[in-house]
Amino acid sequence: MKNINLTLSVALFAACIILAGCQPQPEQPTGNQPEVNQDDTRVIKQFFDEALTTRETYQLLDHLCNNIGHRLSGSEGAAAAVEWTEKVMTDYGFDKVYKQDIMVPNWKRGDKEIARIVGSKGDLSVLALGMSVATPAEGLTAEVVEVQGLDDVEALGQENIEGKIVFYNRPTDQRLIQTGAAYGGAVDQRSAGPAMAARYGAVGVVIRSVGTAFDDVPHTGVTSYRDSIPKIPAAALGVLSADRLTEALKQNPNTKLFLKMNCQTLEDAPSHNVIGELTGSEFPDEIITIGGHLDSWDVGQGAHDDGTGCMQSIQVLRLFQKLGIQPKRTIRAVMFMNEENGTRGGLKYAELAEKNSENHLIALESDGGAFSPRGFGVTAEDATIEKFRSWLPHFDQNTISYIKKGGGGVDIGPLNRTLGTPTIGFIVDSQRAFDVHHSPADVFSSVHPRELELGTASIAGLIYLIDKYGL
Amino acid sequence: MKNINLTLSVALFAACIILAGCQPQPEQPTGNQPEVNQDDTRVIKQFFDEALTTRETYQLLDHLCNNIGHRLSGSEGAAAAVEWTEKVMTDYGFDKVYKQDIMVPNWKRGDKEIARIVGSKGDLSVLALGMSVATPAEGLTAEVVEVQGLDDVEALGQENIEGKIVFYNRPTDQRLIQTGAAYGGAVDQRSAGPAMAARYGAVGVVIRSVGTAFDDVPHTGVTSYRDSIPKIPAAALGVLSADRLTEALKQNPNTKLFLKMNCQTLEDAPSHNVIGELTGSEFPDEIITIGGHLDSWDVGQGAHDDGTGCMQSIQVLRLFQKLGIQPKRTIRAVMFMNEENGTRGGLKYAELAEKNSENHLIALESDGGAFSPRGFGVTAEDATIEKFRSWLPHFDQNTISYIKKGGGGVDIGPLNRTLGTPTIGFIVDSQRAFDVHHSPADVFSSVHPRELELGTASIAGLIYLIDKYGL
Repeated sequence: MKNINLTLSVALFAACIILAGCQPQPEQPTGNQPEVNQDDTRVIKQFFDEALTTRETYQLLDHLCNNIGHRLSGSEGAAAAVEWTEKVMTDYGFDKVYKQDIMVPNWKRGDKEIARIVGSKGDLSVLALGMSVATPAEGLTAEVVEVQGLDDVEALGQENIEGKIVFYNRPTDQRLIQTGAAYGGAVDQRSAGPAMAARYGAVGVVIRSVGTAFDDVPHTGVTSYRDSIPKIPAAALGVLSADRLTEALKQNPNTKLFLKMNCQTLEDAPSHNVIGELTGSEFPDEIITIGGHLDSWDVGQGAHDDGTGCMQSIQVLRLFQKLGIQPKRTIRAVMFMNEENGTRGGLKYAELAEKNSENHLIALESDGGAFSPRGFGVTAEDATIEKFRSWLPHFDQNTISYIKKGGGGVDIGPLNRTLGTPTIGFIVDSQRAFDVHHSPADVFSSVHPRELELGTASIAGLIYLIDKYGL
Repeated sequence: MKNINLTLSVALFAACIILAGCQPQPEQPTGNQPEVNQDDTRVIKQFFDEALTTRETYQLLDHLCNNIGHRLSGSEGAAAAVEWTEKVMTDYGFDKVYKQDIMVPNWKRGDKEIARIVGSKGDLSVLALGMSVATPAEGLTAEVVEVQGLDDVEALGQENIEGKIVFYNRPTDQRLIQTGAAYGGAVDQRSAGPAMAARYGAVGVVIRSVGTAFDDVPHTGVTSYRDSIPKIPAAALGVLSADRLTEALKQNPNTKLFLKMNCQTLEDAPSHNVIGELTGSEFPDEIITIGGHLDSWDVGQGAHDDGTGCMQSIQVLRLFQKLGIQPKRTIRAVMFMNEENGTRGGLKYAELAEKNSENHLIALESDGGAFSPRGFGVTAEDATIEKFRSWLPHFDQNTISYIKKGGGGVDIGPLNRTLGTPTIGFIVDSQRAFDVHHSPADVFSSVHPRELELGTASIAGLIYLIDKYGL
């Protein structure tokens, strides 16, 4: 009877395969060579198991996004996030939890911006750029000069720019597979475009949002002025709004834009980096840093950018703890403050590391969002990169499939420049990142729990191997 | 002046990097060895450029999903999709466009199902399983036996099962990184569970939806009966509804479930595979098949499963055409009909291939959804797999990062079994796939255009190399 039933099960299952719609796909290795320490593979598998089943990174991120919200430097949200992450790490019982004091820029958006094509119905979708000055209280109206980049402004010169609003409208390059590269190729319009336009007498700047989606979500981000040049108000238009403006200019080259922005920069405010540590058992003075940045822009919830990196860093330490692994070296989870508009946290961290003669083995930053892992970028000696590559077989290739030369993060850059510390950037699938980056769309509901947790476990895996074997 | 301005640009850009928030990331190679034919790399890059800038796969999928909708075998949607894809390929001017006649199962869901815990307020979220029989017109009420799998049913035996509704409630294993493996490990409850329960006298079956999300979206899919055993109605509950039912059973082991389903299976209906060809210039008799399945379940829009694979297959041919590449071999885009509940299209395709003594070099199927590419799974001789691996440097590792042994698809399986044709499965990032699979959530708005187009270009790249160099 048992045998008959077993036969039935097998037959039914076979029928299911033939009749399709089920396609069982046994989990199998994906081509990586197998000559690695199987104990290490088992530990790393446990990181993944724990992260994927408890989803604790996701739970923390939920709290950060939905109970605290966005966290621009100097804001109440940023202060609440400092307090809360300190408590979270204290409650986990990490060996040390402490803060580093810093002073941060204190920019306020003020009332919602307005951008409107004069004579047209309906406002444009707009967000002031971070650190921008305000328009006059009654707003600003001027003709618009559309350009494709900073070079155009130089070529047009003062006679064509003076008294106008410069409209930077060069789109991101959709051909680039890594959207970070597409962003990098267009962001000079935002970061340096306003100062360049001001140099030639422009009275304001609007840019086409630096993102990858064809929608009307405006993307903010920092802009930088020059002390010797007047500061002019600068804002980002949603991509569809930018298209509306360019269309209006085609119809009428004398189209005027009305812009009203209410931002201001207050005195620098006190804030903090927040640090949790597991103390090394053999080499407590050798420090491995894992970090993200706790501040975000003042729209959305800073879920991908970069609540994710912070919650992942905390969870890497928790995974060690949960599995009963005491690291040989000291591992720090660092919530850096003020990545978005000043890097004061990263600069302070490096300054204190130098002042205290700390020995930093390596630092890793996660700041690409809560998307599926793809690889690590490593700024280190070739031998280290080769060593990391020899560890690839520990990872399912649907998580970490490559180690590339070159990588790090904005917050750990100063450590590299000051102490020469090697750095690692955690690389995720970037296709959706710049749809939400620096925008109201960067919210918790856009985070997939499994993609987020795969990131946590991938980072934990690499850090475990570095801690055990060194560089 | 020019120099000063240049200096200003550079200084502003440097300031932007230091002040952060911009992080330009130059696109660079990701560690693959460089000793490959650079002309091929350029061609493949053009596939990506074209796909990412025109987004034509996305446009086609938009039409299929939003103008035609879901497409269960035998439905009006399926017939419309046959007609439309034939027209699309004809309009592109492919060398040959034709259909293969098949007869398909013709199952109808009928009026919306109802599942309700007797004595409880609010219906459960439910979908009849595909090919299920109906309940009696007045519905069915019975006590519920919760089990974790088919073995439990055998162990409980007739005395505990007879007259009851069996509730299969084993969740998918969240620890598995490839969600297809998690699905494969749970789907026997859906495909073979009803027949097993019927064998022991059950009057109905409900299952916990085989998906990866913790929500209340019900996931359908085919179930198979046995001729010698009575057919009983079977349905899938949303995961949260399954949790409600298990909770109710904890409170009261005699909990009864009311189930009303109105499905019926009509006479087999005529339908078609739809095929478009580019004829080979040197070896026209050597056939390379690229396919997806045109049918879908009768909920949602069949966007990921598998409008994606069909539209990608068409677009691979268009990319060849657009770049002016005449293939050496004959390349076919095949829209297979009836993958979901019968595989009649795949079986007919193989049958005709054998009958017509066709020479099939290899066949590829895309049926994992419109997510970022990760690799290819290949069922072929080791030398072929090694050859494919030698081509990896042509691909950015954020698209195709590995070739693994073993892979194919439901529709091309018969070709492999009949003629021994090697097969390739296109592997995508699977984290979100089983949140929407076989459910009302499988809609166009859940498709990301860049992720979809990266798939098209990745497949085109591999097919280009196979066509040029053989196996």
